[in-house]
Amino acid sequence: MAVYTDISEYELSDFLTSYNIGSLLSCKGIAEGVENSNFLLHTQKDAYILTLYEKRVNEKDLPFFFGLMHHLAGKGIACPQPIAAKDGALVSHLAGRPAAVITFLEGMWIRKPNVAHCRSVGAVLARVHLAGEDFSMKHENSLSLSGWRTLWNACRTRANAFATDLSVEIDRELDNLEDLWPVDLPVGIIHADLFPDNVFFLGDRLSGLIDFYFACNDLLAYDIAVCLNAWCFEKDGSFNLTKGSAMLSAYCRERPLTESELAFLPLLARGAAIRFFLTRLYDWFYSPENGLVVKKDPLEYLRKLRFFGQIRQISELGLSKI
Amino acid sequence: MAVYTDISEYELSDFLTSYNIGSLLSCKGIAEGVENSNFLLHTQKDAYILTLYEKRVNEKDLPFFFGLMHHLAGKGIACPQPIAAKDGALVSHLAGRPAAVITFLEGMWIRKPNVAHCRSVGAVLARVHLAGEDFSMKHENSLSLSGWRTLWNACRTRANAFATDLSVEIDRELDNLEDLWPVDLPVGIIHADLFPDNVFFLGDRLSGLIDFYFACNDLLAYDIAVCLNAWCFEKDGSFNLTKGSAMLSAYCRERPLTESELAFLPLLARGAAIRFFLTRLYDWFYSPENGLVVKKDPLEYLRKLRFFGQIRQISELGLSKI
Repeated sequence: MAVYTDISEYELSDFLTSYNIGSLLSCKGIAEGVENSNFLLHTQKDAYILTLYEKRVNEKDLPFFFGLMHHLAGKGIACPQPIAAKDGALVSHLAGRPAAVITFLEGMWIRKPNVAHCRSVGAVLARVHLAGEDFSMKHENSLSLSGWRTLWNACRTRANAFATDLSVEIDRELDNLEDLWPVDLPVGIIHADLFPDNVFFLGDRLSGLIDFYFACNDLLAYDIAVCLNAWCFEKDGSFNLTKGSAMLSAYCRERPLTESELAFLPLLARGAAIRFFLTRLYDWFYSPENGLVVKKDPLEYLRKLRFFGQIRQISELGLSKI
Repeated sequence: MAVYTDISEYELSDFLTSYNIGSLLSCKGIAEGVENSNFLLHTQKDAYILTLYEKRVNEKDLPFFFGLMHHLAGKGIACPQPIAAKDGALVSHLAGRPAAVITFLEGMWIRKPNVAHCRSVGAVLARVHLAGEDFSMKHENSLSLSGWRTLWNACRTRANAFATDLSVEIDRELDNLEDLWPVDLPVGIIHADLFPDNVFFLGDRLSGLIDFYFACNDLLAYDIAVCLNAWCFEKDGSFNLTKGSAMLSAYCRERPLTESELAFLPLLARGAAIRFFLTRLYDWFYSPENGLVVKKDPLEYLRKLRFFGQIRQISELGLSKI
């Protein structure tokens, strides 16, 4: 849950005079998202999300994210759209932070995804990858291999507090990933954070995607690896093969994975697991104890990392054949 | 900030089938209120607030609060209205808690109230008191004298951690209040918690009141004492006489205070200060450290208590004559 920054009615009214979105009716801080402060605005015209960018999102990267959201919408991928101010700007400033008004996307995120949800996510992820093919802007993934090493260096000496010999295990894992990470798989635009809270459904229908603030250019199959981590495990920590199968099959129907991508998928899934393990670990040690963020358990992703480390063939993730 | 309980889309959909409010479009936990979990619902029909009652609000008291909100609305006081389920019930259950759907009241609460806001609050408070005169249900104030003593007994031994000799000071203050508390002032329905976050404005116009979950039958002037505490101090801790004057004068134009009420107002203001001091102190010691609630500083109300303890006549609060 977030909302780090409170906004006074004066600041907000002043800010909104530079937009053509009608007069303000209400503004509620919403308890979703952990990176930014989000407010649900009602104006006489419509509902909007006002986002203040707090951390990990650099203002200079916002044109990439907004450009991507605009590009994807043009290709039929439902996602929020930034609203231009009267002067055409998509990014303004409010309460000392970069701020943007974006359209409000109706829908509910799914707390307990079932197989059909995983199938929908697999399909939409492939459609995002295809839609991104002719997007011209570029953005490096700051949370890939070298980024993981940086996070780990900041946490390493304290990590054994979490699990015995953790520092040895993660050292070895990172060395391994650095040695084996593929370089010639298909690349393109990836969402890189397509967790359940970023996918909205209306009833059984996937109604749209949100939160493109980790989107970047990277291996397309790494995005599936993130989704396998995020969607296909049960609360008890077990991997649900039926969900994995539904997700991967649905993806492949829209965009068939190459043999190389399939062969590397278990390794990419280890990478995705260590990425979320390390950001959670870093936040555990470095987030202020101000009561505003509920810290997430890093060990959940250590268990996923170990699971994917034991996978020898793609059938163990749910695809019966290459 | 609140939202203690997360709701799954299944629970929510199931819950909403018993209401005639259209199909669900979205549900966002909102970061306001500290007693209950509140969600802003969009349905195809309208916007609503879904409240799960977490603590301090007893389910058996909800008919009083809802009855009052309905009664006040009938008298022209804008406030949220509970929506009856198809079977007529105003209270249902969701996620193991009493739950209600209420109308969404547009408006912004004022982070930095000015003199005009204090004037509006004084006037609307008097109108609430007048409108409540013929409300037939009764509800005792559980956070009056005896309730303060109970809170204090739970905190007393640890209180000196907050300020030197605090336990002696509060002992003496409570004894004093118990000795001097008036018994024959006008009584009626009071809101009892009319802080800035419970009063909405659209532009300069007061658009409505929310959060009647502390409303009860008690001394009417005690409600003004609460508002003097809540609205008329500056961030530096100083009492703003102009705001006090605006609030009291506006109140008196709608409902003239009796001479006794005016004479007792400084004492009632001490009572209101100690009430919020004690609930904050209690929450400081007893709220779980789960990161969901930002604890409020009890000392703010200790300073207000001391300020009101030095007041000898009503002119020091802003009314030039009785």
